[in-house]
Order: sequence, then structure tokens, then C-alpha cells
Amino acid sequence: MSEVHSRYPVSVRWEGEKRGLASSADGLPDLKVASPPPFGGPAGVWSPEHLFVLAASTCWMTTFLAVAQASSLEVLAVECSGEGVLDKGEDRRFRISSIALRPRVTIAREEDRERAGRLIEKAEAVCLIRNSMRSEVTLSSEVLVQAPALAAP
Amino acid sequence: MSEVHSRYPVSVRWEGEKRGLASSADGLPDLKVASPPPFGGPAGVWSPEHLFVLAASTCWMTTFLAVAQASSLEVLAVECSGEGVLDKGEDRRFRISSIALRPRVTIAREEDRERAGRLIEKAEAVCLIRNSMRSEVTLSSEVLVQAPALAAP
Repeated sequence: MSEVHSRYPVSVRWEGEKRGLASSADGLPDLKVASPPPFGGPAGVWSPEHLFVLAASTCWMTTFLAVAQASSLEVLAVECSGEGVLDKGEDRRFRISSIALRPRVTIAREEDRERAGRLIEKAEAVCLIRNSMRSEVTLSSEVLVQAPALAAP
Repeated sequence: MSEVHSRYPVSVRWEGEKRGLASSADGLPDLKVASPPPFGGPAGVWSPEHLFVLAASTCWMTTFLAVAQASSLEVLAVECSGEGVLDKGEDRRFRISSIALRPRVTIAREEDRERAGRLIEKAEAVCLIRNSMRSEVTLSSEVLVQAPALAAP
């Protein structure tokens, strides 16, 4: 049997048309949500599709920060863009078939480049949200090296 | 071959510790995100786990609104709480193993109760986010009937 590690409660309440207001018993800030524009919702509001892709991108990032810390990798900056593709499966049902993650990590030392690349891939492999998805998740990463600024003379 | 219906871009940038700032090329409002407290993050910030569960709850709601509209069901109020359970699978990896959705729908007419129940289940069956998840999604719904207020004499 599996052991429950923790529970994540949320709630959403309809606010008219295709809009809602999300909250959580964990005391999270209220968040406006809506159907996305292709399904008749308003522009500029977080949709279920965007939230799903964001869960994957953010989980990659937080997992990477954890594995980088465990590996004592000095990290200067981390970004991760993600793009989900919505299409119909063979069963003619809509689903997010794939998510392309594009992490960009800035490190301080050239000699850490290869290790950074390995940790980027490790974070994707152990990311718990990715492990909870049927969507195919692909990774296309970039590692930048930024030398520390020289002290002024 | 499947046909791409639409694409959902997001991005997240590290802001120190276990926190980040999410955005989207689709012009969505910036959203603070972080690891959840069980993984060393701050309380009161949307985590990947909460976002994942919220994607399912919100997709159920927006799908229900669509099927209710298509069926000309008069709906007065809709809420949907959801709770995700995080545990380790047989492969010893963490994932959201299950999400319990608890929709509560208020309708105007007692005679619509059975149809409302069917549409609640239909929305769950066709919800595209649910179709993109490995997590087991369960549904436990409640239908309330609220008679219109009587006009003052």
C-alpha cells in the first residue's frame, strides 16, 4: 500500500458566463479562472489548460532547484517555459497530448555545464506532476554560463 | 493523425528560495508560485500540486457549464471542490495518485434533478484535463434545488 504524503484541497465557484473564482482551504490567494478563448471564455484569465501546463513547468523548476541544491550546484537563474498542445486523441476526445518544456538555467562556472544538464534531465524524470500526467512531456534545455561581475577597480 | 486545436504557453521564472513568478504569452496575470510547504516552500502560495488539482476542478466546472447550456438546464450556482492525494507509487516515485472532485450544483426545478446528475457525470467523462491525467479522478456530487424567491405581496 502507498503512504499518503499530503493532501491538496482547492475549490472553484462559478461567477457567471464561463468564469469562476478559485480558492483553497490551505489559504491560497483567490485566483480568477475561466474557459480559454477557444472554448468561449475571456482572454487574460488562467484557464484549466494553462494551469495544467503551468503545474508541469513549475514542478520541473522546483524539482530542479531541489536536485541542484542536493548536488551543491551554484545556480544563478532558472526559467522554464512550457507549451501544451490540445488535440483529439484516437478516442475523439480532447486532451493535452503533449507539453514541451524549455528550461533555461544560468550557472556560474563553465565546468558545471555538463552536471547542470544532467540535473535538468533528472528533475524532469522525477517531477511528480509529470508522473501524474498522460501527456507526453518533452524537454529542450539551455545552459548559460554567466561569469561573476568583476569588482570595480 | 490528430489535429491541433490550440496551444497553451506558460512560463515560470525563479525568484529565490523555492518561489517563482508565472506568466504567459497569452497575456495572463502574473501568478506567484512555489513549492508547497511539505517540500520546503512557503504557505499561502499556489504550488504545482494545487495547480494540478485546480486544473481538474475548473475543467470539470467549465465542461459542466457547457453541457448544461447545450442541454438547456437552468443552473443557479455551481461549486466544485477537489482534493488531490500525493503519495508514492509502486515505482517509489511521488505522484498525485487520486483527485476527489465534489461538485455542488444548484438548480431551479426539482424535475431537473435527475438530468442535472447525468450532466454532472457527463462533464466528468469528457473533461479534457481529466483525460490528460494518470490520477484516478472520483466524483461525489450534490444537487440542490432552490425555488425562486416569491415576489413580495
